[in-house]
Amino acid sequence: MSKILEEVLNANAHYAADFGDKAALALPPARHFAILTCMDARLDPAKYAGLAEGDAHVIRNAGGRASDDAIRSLVISYKLLGTREWFVIHHTDCGMELFTNEIMSDLLASSLRTATVDETGWHDCGTGPGCSDGKYINWLTIKSQEQSVLEDVARIRNHTLVPRDIPVYGYIYDVRSGRLLEVPAATEAGRAA
Amino acid sequence: MSKILEEVLNANAHYAADFGDKAALALPPARHFAILTCMDARLDPAKYAGLAEGDAHVIRNAGGRASDDAIRSLVISYKLLGTREWFVIHHTDCGMELFTNEIMSDLLASSLRTATVDETGWHDCGTGPGCSDGKYINWLTIKSQEQSVLEDVARIRNHTLVPRDIPVYGYIYDVRSGRLLEVPAATEAGRAA
Repeated sequence: MSKILEEVLNANAHYAADFGDKAALALPPARHFAILTCMDARLDPAKYAGLAEGDAHVIRNAGGRASDDAIRSLVISYKLLGTREWFVIHHTDCGMELFTNEIMSDLLASSLRTATVDETGWHDCGTGPGCSDGKYINWLTIKSQEQSVLEDVARIRNHTLVPRDIPVYGYIYDVRSGRLLEVPAATEAGRAA
Repeated sequence: MSKILEEVLNANAHYAADFGDKAALALPPARHFAILTCMDARLDPAKYAGLAEGDAHVIRNAGGRASDDAIRSLVISYKLLGTREWFVIHHTDCGMELFTNEIMSDLLASSLRTATVDETGWHDCGTGPGCSDGKYINWLTIKSQEQSVLEDVARIRNHTLVPRDIPVYGYIYDVRSGRLLEVPAATEAGRAA
């Protein structure tokens, strides 16, 4: 067993030993909201936004982007489990600002097989034009956090499957201070219509 | 300002007021691993797996599924930010077990416009066959947690862009006890090759 696996299982045993009344928590989020944020290791949404177990849905991916999969999750969150307010929270010093699709393509081409994407998902790339470097993959990199928050809030707001009455708030988490900084243009774009 | 927004910002102010040495954390995860788990409100991966800020990437979506977007995040996690072990952690009493693509399609058709998916993402559905109920969307529902963990670990293991030397561990989090329960067949399928 790896050191990491052992540490995780030991920490989990401690957590479960003092589980208390959390066993009785209901499935739907008690506070009826959801947060979409980055997978970054420095971010702990439960701590930075004050969530107890049972309070809110937390969706995380590289960048905290409003990918199709994040929107799949948000639609399920509201339609089946009753969330009524959503946050999009990107952050300063994000890894997604450090590269581009071209850089990622080069990195992968140097060490791995390549892939492409069509409507059924990811595939080994064939021999067609452009198939040598995985360049069809959109890694959802970020040039400006304010812009990416605005774009993602707008994408959610305008999505076919998102109801008009859910406000979407746009924020940036500052990894140097722990503070949430509003992106006013995003919150405005995400206002319930 | 909504009550939820006010509560989140107040909690954040408290968190930031005692931020301490977290301001100095580095971008790459200090413990070099990543967890893919469900957005469920009852799950707090930092608590159930013993993560401090800075330790590990956490990727979350509805079900904790190995979607294309989750794999995008995992590939970035390893290739740019150095994670070397991955966990797939689904959980008991998951909302994704409560419905099917057909049920979701019916629910959405009754209240919203419909959509379909092609290689460029989600779209308003046109007038073609099958376009009346959003049935082209795969919601990644779950019939059996053991099966979904096994499938997702195998999908990651066999993915074109995932290197052979990263072990992928398969677990189910029990929402009644807080314990992580291994899915041995999944961990076996996710073994580094």
